[in-house]
Amino acid sequence: MGLIVQKFEGYFLTNTEGILNITDRITKAYREGNSVVAVVSVQDTLEVALRQSAREVNPEASLREMDVLISAGAQISSALVAMAIEKEGYPVVSLTGYQAGITTDSNYGNAKIKDINTERIFRELDRRNIVIVAGSQGCNRFDDITTFGRGGMDTAAVAFAAALKADLCEIYVDVDGIYTADPKTVNSVKVLKDISYDELLELESLGANNLHSRAVELAKKFNIHLVVKSGFNDSPGTVIKEVGNVEKVLVRGVVRDNNVARVAVIGIEDRPGMAFKLFSLLAKDNISVDLILQSIGRDRTKDISFIVSRENLQKTIEIIDSNLGILEAREVSYSDQYSKVSIVGAGMINNPGVAAAMFEALYDVDINIHMITTSEIKISVLVDIHEADRAVNAIHEKFRL
Amino acid sequence: MGLIVQKFEGYFLTNTEGILNITDRITKAYREGNSVVAVVSVQDTLEVALRQSAREVNPEASLREMDVLISAGAQISSALVAMAIEKEGYPVVSLTGYQAGITTDSNYGNAKIKDINTERIFRELDRRNIVIVAGSQGCNRFDDITTFGRGGMDTAAVAFAAALKADLCEIYVDVDGIYTADPKTVNSVKVLKDISYDELLELESLGANNLHSRAVELAKKFNIHLVVKSGFNDSPGTVIKEVGNVEKVLVRGVVRDNNVARVAVIGIEDRPGMAFKLFSLLAKDNISVDLILQSIGRDRTKDISFIVSRENLQKTIEIIDSNLGILEAREVSYSDQYSKVSIVGAGMINNPGVAAAMFEALYDVDINIHMITTSEIKISVLVDIHEADRAVNAIHEKFRL
Repeated sequence: MGLIVQKFEGYFLTNTEGILNITDRITKAYREGNSVVAVVSVQDTLEVALRQSAREVNPEASLREMDVLISAGAQISSALVAMAIEKEGYPVVSLTGYQAGITTDSNYGNAKIKDINTERIFRELDRRNIVIVAGSQGCNRFDDITTFGRGGMDTAAVAFAAALKADLCEIYVDVDGIYTADPKTVNSVKVLKDISYDELLELESLGANNLHSRAVELAKKFNIHLVVKSGFNDSPGTVIKEVGNVEKVLVRGVVRDNNVARVAVIGIEDRPGMAFKLFSLLAKDNISVDLILQSIGRDRTKDISFIVSRENLQKTIEIIDSNLGILEAREVSYSDQYSKVSIVGAGMINNPGVAAAMFEALYDVDINIHMITTSEIKISVLVDIHEADRAVNAIHEKFRL
Repeated sequence: MGLIVQKFEGYFLTNTEGILNITDRITKAYREGNSVVAVVSVQDTLEVALRQSAREVNPEASLREMDVLISAGAQISSALVAMAIEKEGYPVVSLTGYQAGITTDSNYGNAKIKDINTERIFRELDRRNIVIVAGSQGCNRFDDITTFGRGGMDTAAVAFAAALKADLCEIYVDVDGIYTADPKTVNSVKVLKDISYDELLELESLGANNLHSRAVELAKKFNIHLVVKSGFNDSPGTVIKEVGNVEKVLVRGVVRDNNVARVAVIGIEDRPGMAFKLFSLLAKDNISVDLILQSIGRDRTKDISFIVSRENLQKTIEIIDSNLGILEAREVSYSDQYSKVSIVGAGMINNPGVAAAMFEALYDVDINIHMITTSEIKISVLVDIHEADRAVNAIHEKFRL
């Protein structure tokens, strides 16, 4: 018995059957004596229809009005779920983001939660009402509606769990939990029983789509007991915990990220400050850089390679091209024919053999490594894109995940 | 130049073409130098879909959750209209009922406006923003969403016009204004240039559907300059004014109301207080009664006939049947095979020949009159339902409307 926050994305709500399914999950938690707050999203189909209507009316509509439009979708979901719960005979109330006390900044379409005033929700919970919150929306200081953008549902659920000091935050997904690798790539994947926040953060930032990194960071900060589990069956899912509380598995999982492009700035003058110049230019345009490699200086020049996301590739090249003089570099080259393959595990920090085993796995199947980077709980390598699947499988097998 | 409130029902918004059409009306008023507040309703098609979804999930959903659901529809409309106006390059902002400052009572599904806090709207108008309000919705003292029910859009528009001290309130409809009779019944109908609040109220309560009586009453109370006009062409529509300011036309229009049922309580003991007993019984159950006729007492008993709406007929009969003893009446009979046909005109009060001319028109076409009632600006008769169309046409012709 305690306070549970549950989160359901729009794909759970596309039809009456889906709504009744999540109603079961919500009322089950309530029947077991818990206070329940469920955060629900706009139905996938409705969101598509709304965005289509907006495009027809004005392809360049303001983000403010887009937020008014899309937030109405989640409000519809919240009402329908509440109605379904009423039908089962449970006391329930739906709340908009505003009513649920969420204030955000004014970054329409991608707003960040600034505060949650829990007064209303606690008043409803005290009356033993189930609370259904229209997700991914809040209200800024102008009393205007804002939405959270990508990953906002996860973040909202965790933020509620933190603000309400919930005992548990359940993130319902369409898979069985967090896997040791992408089931589409590897046949023998397993669902992890548990994983630490940091491990999940590394997996997440590497392209695992189960849970958004902002949400995991927030969960870590407030030490929220988080579970990622299926909304379609009764498998236990994956528990996300403090590092100290999870089994120190050597390698937790292996993931692949195709959204990478390698950029190489060649023939940079070999003197102090050049790396600083290069990356501050990119930072000014909000371009995130990963996996930086600097060649050892030779002939008084050096090369700096790094990875950017594919959507940032063109801008990156333009910036460097027009600054070759300032950078005192000869040329810039690039390719998006790579994948980043990574292994993650809190146990590897004390186990120097892990990196070697990973490289061996790749050598065994004759895959060339273009770049390597390591952190305390992660090792990443860059391989040819058409060899990435083989690489993931070889590593997954090597570590018997 | 001034402040204009415009109202558009959901049938104006069913597709992009419709949205662009009303955008033209809104921006035209703005271009002419006016401050513009437009109240828009949920798209007809969306409302049908939402109600269908609700029925599938829970046919007996609470009114509170129905209001959360349906109000989201008007919010969607407001965003789409705002986007269309943005596209035309005009400054615009959409507001929900809550943001627009509307507080209501807690009668979900049929809430009454208690107050409009105009601060936000005036702030937007001062910035020269066009304001689009999601119509037929407000917020009660619990911060919950309420909707206004039937006629609520009209009432909201007029209430805004009153609260904002607007110079003009334009009610856009799918006909050319207020007609002298129902165009479906009479071929030679004309659009009235103007009409008084009271005349319109009589027409409205008699079943003309252009404008809801609550809205007209409110307009009368605050002396709002009201225009009912087409949203599909540029005809001038009908202006609604104070009685003193309209041309004193003898007969303004003729209308038919089929939603009537005649009830006769027969053989009531002929002594004081019996009518009081009868109608207080009905009032207790919120049954409105119209056109009461009492026979002259004979044999120490009398008969009382009256009209109720068809949906109230059964309840009325049940109430009287179970109280025949208290009423000291012999029996109750009823029929719903009647229509009420009425003429309305502020001029008839000083013109005793009007009633006679009406009866003559019916006599000329051999239509029997079952009941008659007159007020200062209205004469109503009850005729057989299958003769009602002929009656309306005969009267319309008689008065050369």
